[in-house]
Amino acid sequence: MALEGVLRPGHIALRVLELEPAVRHYTEVLGLHETGRDANGRVYLKAWDEHDHHSVVLREADEPGMDYIGFRVDGPATLDRLASAVKDSGLVSDCKWIEAGEHLQTGMRFRFTVSTGHAIELFAHKEKIGTATGDVNPDPWPDGLRGMSPSRFDHCLLYGDGFDDTVKLFREVLGFSLTEQVVTPDGLQIAAFLTCSNKAHDIAFIRHGEKNKFHHASFVLDSWGDVLRAADLISKHDVALDIGPTRHGITRGATIYFFDPSGNRNEVFAGGYIHYPDKPVITWHEKELGRAIFYHDRKLNDAFLTVLT
Amino acid sequence: MALEGVLRPGHIALRVLELEPAVRHYTEVLGLHETGRDANGRVYLKAWDEHDHHSVVLREADEPGMDYIGFRVDGPATLDRLASAVKDSGLVSDCKWIEAGEHLQTGMRFRFTVSTGHAIELFAHKEKIGTATGDVNPDPWPDGLRGMSPSRFDHCLLYGDGFDDTVKLFREVLGFSLTEQVVTPDGLQIAAFLTCSNKAHDIAFIRHGEKNKFHHASFVLDSWGDVLRAADLISKHDVALDIGPTRHGITRGATIYFFDPSGNRNEVFAGGYIHYPDKPVITWHEKELGRAIFYHDRKLNDAFLTVLT
Amino acid sequence: MALEGVLRPGHIALRVLELEPAVRHYTEVLGLHETGRDANGRVYLKAWDEHDHHSVVLREADEPGMDYIGFRVDGPATLDRLASAVKDSGLVSDCKWIEAGEHLQTGMRFRFTVSTGHAIELFAHKEKIGTATGDVNPDPWPDGLRGMSPSRFDHCLLYGDGFDDTVKLFREVLGFSLTEQVVTPDGLQIAAFLTCSNKAHDIAFIRHGEKNKFHHASFVLDSWGDVLRAADLISKHDVALDIGPTRHGITRGATIYFFDPSGNRNEVFAGGYIHYPDKPVITWHEKELGRAIFYHDRKLNDAFLTVLT
Amino acid sequence: MALEGVLRPGHIALRVLELEPAVRHYTEVLGLHETGRDANGRVYLKAWDEHDHHSVVLREADEPGMDYIGFRVDGPATLDRLASAVKDSGLVSDCKWIEAGEHLQTGMRFRFTVSTGHAIELFAHKEKIGTATGDVNPDPWPDGLRGMSPSRFDHCLLYGDGFDDTVKLFREVLGFSLTEQVVTPDGLQIAAFLTCSNKAHDIAFIRHGEKNKFHHASFVLDSWGDVLRAADLISKHDVALDIGPTRHGITRGATIYFFDPSGNRNEVFAGGYIHYPDKPVITWHEKELGRAIFYHDRKLNDAFLTVLT
Repeated sequence: MALEGVLRPGHIALRVLELEPAVRHYTEVLGLHETGRDANGRVYLKAWDEHDHHSVVLREADEPGMDYIGFRVDGPATLDRLASAVKDSGLVSDCKWIEAGEHLQTGMRFRFTVSTGHAIELFAHKEKIGTATGDVNPDPWPDGLRGMSPSRFDHCLLYGDGFDDTVKLFREVLGFSLTEQVVTPDGLQIAAFLTCSNKAHDIAFIRHGEKNKFHHASFVLDSWGDVLRAADLISKHDVALDIGPTRHGITRGATIYFFDPSGNRNEVFAGGYIHYPDKPVITWHEKELGRAIFYHDRKLNDAFLTVLT
Repeated sequence: MALEGVLRPGHIALRVLELEPAVRHYTEVLGLHETGRDANGRVYLKAWDEHDHHSVVLREADEPGMDYIGFRVDGPATLDRLASAVKDSGLVSDCKWIEAGEHLQTGMRFRFTVSTGHAIELFAHKEKIGTATGDVNPDPWPDGLRGMSPSRFDHCLLYGDGFDDTVKLFREVLGFSLTEQVVTPDGLQIAAFLTCSNKAHDIAFIRHGEKNKFHHASFVLDSWGDVLRAADLISKHDVALDIGPTRHGITRGATIYFFDPSGNRNEVFAGGYIHYPDKPVITWHEKELGRAIFYHDRKLNDAFLTVLT
Repeated sequence: MALEGVLRPGHIALRVLELEPAVRHYTEVLGLHETGRDANGRVYLKAWDEHDHHSVVLREADEPGMDYIGFRVDGPATLDRLASAVKDSGLVSDCKWIEAGEHLQTGMRFRFTVSTGHAIELFAHKEKIGTATGDVNPDPWPDGLRGMSPSRFDHCLLYGDGFDDTVKLFREVLGFSLTEQVVTPDGLQIAAFLTCSNKAHDIAFIRHGEKNKFHHASFVLDSWGDVLRAADLISKHDVALDIGPTRHGITRGATIYFFDPSGNRNEVFAGGYIHYPDKPVITWHEKELGRAIFYHDRKLNDAFLTVLT
Repeated sequence: MALEGVLRPGHIALRVLELEPAVRHYTEVLGLHETGRDANGRVYLKAWDEHDHHSVVLREADEPGMDYIGFRVDGPATLDRLASAVKDSGLVSDCKWIEAGEHLQTGMRFRFTVSTGHAIELFAHKEKIGTATGDVNPDPWPDGLRGMSPSRFDHCLLYGDGFDDTVKLFREVLGFSLTEQVVTPDGLQIAAFLTCSNKAHDIAFIRHGEKNKFHHASFVLDSWGDVLRAADLISKHDVALDIGPTRHGITRGATIYFFDPSGNRNEVFAGGYIHYPDKPVITWHEKELGRAIFYHDRKLNDAFLTVLT
């Protein structure tokens, strides 16, 4: 099989300060679809082109941030194999199995904490509830789209110390490719963009003084025109804008960043390139960090660097 | 590793009636870059975002058409393993190894003929000559682009009988996924779209009465705006248009088709979706074939169905 | 005043075979807003960025086609002056005043028949009912848009004999500029694109054997991306497509044509250029008519030439 | 005639600190074409879709800024009539006629200083040197475009005191329409957007403490995709970016601002709406100034407000 092992970021679990304003944001502004609520009050959401039951899970809490991100692997055997390999890697802590059904319509999940402090999950099963266009003679997009209506949850960016071991785990144990990196003049890697697919990134890490910080969850749009429409919707809904529309040097994506009502950062973006594992790693020098992150401004805004949840 | 085995369509070898008009078409109109000529007079070309030495090879001949398409695999061990598996599959004929260097800057290639009559190659090495933007602090696109300037060769569509065995070979031996299919009321599969990646297709086959026919070679653009620009260039250069700009139902791509001076069909397109191997196969009914191929017209034009090389 | 005299095409009155399917087409597919119905059963519609009460009027009849098109002039004095000038021109017949209120919320209209057989109106008053965004701190577009949602009715194309006198009337009496023309090798003008504004056309005429034929009513979109979306909607709603997405050589517009349920042709388009009265007239030779009309195909489709209502 | 009197902004004369870097900026980055140099060393430039000999004139000087902006009127009689009306208005000073030929290929110009301190010109003749596409069977865009390649010089924004008299002159003497305004809670108008056409603005003024300040000269692009391309070019050429890509609330335009090497601000933009003189004036409240200027950010950046030349 040409695509195997870890397939994609399958869900991200976010903490929000108040559930209903958050649900309104993620459904009406971002444009995800609510697919269920569980006995713990968690709300499950998916984007219109995702077949799996959910890709975002919201939980009310005292502080915003990310509880965990879960990756879909290609089957139960891979789940067992990767769980063992992760456990034996010496690079993680707090390994445990979460029973099937703890997430709605989801099988067993193997959870562990990486050295940057983030909880990561692997799972092999989630019910496919399909999409509104169906799989027989489908239209290219469904009726009734709301808000920015990204087609998929795409990736997230996480900050933490213990950066090297986390990058090592993703590359050597989980089979991710390094697509792009930022290095200091001394050659220290301070940012790593990692993919398990042909996408420019499925997860990314920034070397940072504090563990377990969340920068943003990102969702994919079709076009630069959709980024403008997203920007207009941000203003129409009085959503807090971080920066954009602009382009990233890293990944080439055309992008806009904004905040959910609890202060968790969201991104919607379009474009990029097709990654292959034999493609040379793209390296950005720290002095070009401005251009790397925001290709047009060529400088970083304070909020982008310092607001983490 | 998450992406392994067959990685991508690495080169397509096309026959053209006159070399220099063909080179002008592929460089000035389509916008590929000439990277070399060999002792046999063949011309090698690549798209701007491809690192490998070439993705298109042109050869002067009495008849247009495709000589072969070659797929890049992830390394020499995979090349050996897949060569054996292909040879032992009972689904191919005319297996042979082509020595390293027969293509400029390319390692050994394993060539075989599939039951639809097409010559297919596997190879594990081609020199990376890089891109004009480089891999250190790169701009998102290079200066000096000409013509439509697609970023990559993307896929091809082939017609032939012996369809079932060819599809079987790609799925079961080479590890491709079936993303979309067209079926008759009797359930006969008459078109198969196959991928070895997250792309909607890397190769596709149509069941057809005659073996070894070539429908088109396709190159990927960034946006629907680029499709309009390509359409304008087709008219400015008096290139023979087949159809477009339009959208495919199958793969959702926004597209335009045209002919090189020898009558080989080219496509440039943008968009589509992110495929995963666990995504349900999309099925189109034969009666919806019009909408499947040309989503807006909902009917097929004669040229598209009958002009093959 | 820099813009004066005839300001714009203010309304087009179309005959439809069945009213309710027509209303569904013009509201749900095209995306106009119904603003009223009168005692005669006529339905009034406007586009989202038009302030006037209506720009399209639908009437149920046995045959499709255009009853008349009405132009808004800059005030009552201009209306009187132009009515006299038209009457005295010797170029029209059937002059009459239509009383205020015959159209909902519209003042007196002066109606006349031009030599191509079409009924044309001038009027100086129609109630401004405003737009959903309002005129105070407005958003760039309103919520709740449906269908293709053009911002305005833009122009129409009419066919008829008596072509020269009609063009003369529009240029010499009504003050329109000729922006583009198609001429035969003998220098006979066979198409004339006329504007009373900076737009590439406000009305256009084709020399034709039969009087009083209607080719299409056109509505303006923001972008080529909106043309793709319109094309998708045409397919999703199973609307009869004429041709597109494509580009016109004449006016440079990016366009798509389709039919309402009664067979009246509609266009939605984006782009063009800024016309000024001192700009040279653009001339197309008849042998380049294909490229002039459909810049990509460079040939005319039969339906486009022959289907008139 | 439907379009008459003042037709358009015909040229803007800018001071630059060093001529050759400025010429490189305006030709290679912005993408204008140099059409001549005069005995005083001034450089004349035009955009690709302009027929007149020039729309931008550069002069080397010790300080950057605007020398004057000239408006094309519809003929010599109008020039005389408006010159008299301006002179007699009591709203201007320093009236004088500039002899024909003082600008290359340009007729007599009537120059005057408005109360905001800016020199304004009217002229009725400039040689039409045409465009690269020609006026016979033209392509929609020419080959060989460089840089951002706007189609036209569009408008400028000027700051000064004496604001009310200047706005009065443009509206009452020169026949411009007010399309949009910004007002304080007391009803004081602090910004006025004025048009002599169907465009959302041909010139705009901001009430300001100091006379004769220049904010930006603006050039029009076809699409939001072209704005992204312009943004990329700004970074590729290391041009100083002010702000963008973003959207204006005022005029709805999608825009980006940057500086020429002397510090004069340039804008390229796309989109907007079709203005008519009977359209209600759009009013923005001062408290919504952020949203009015930068619809997405909803706040003004310091550079935008304070950097004037």
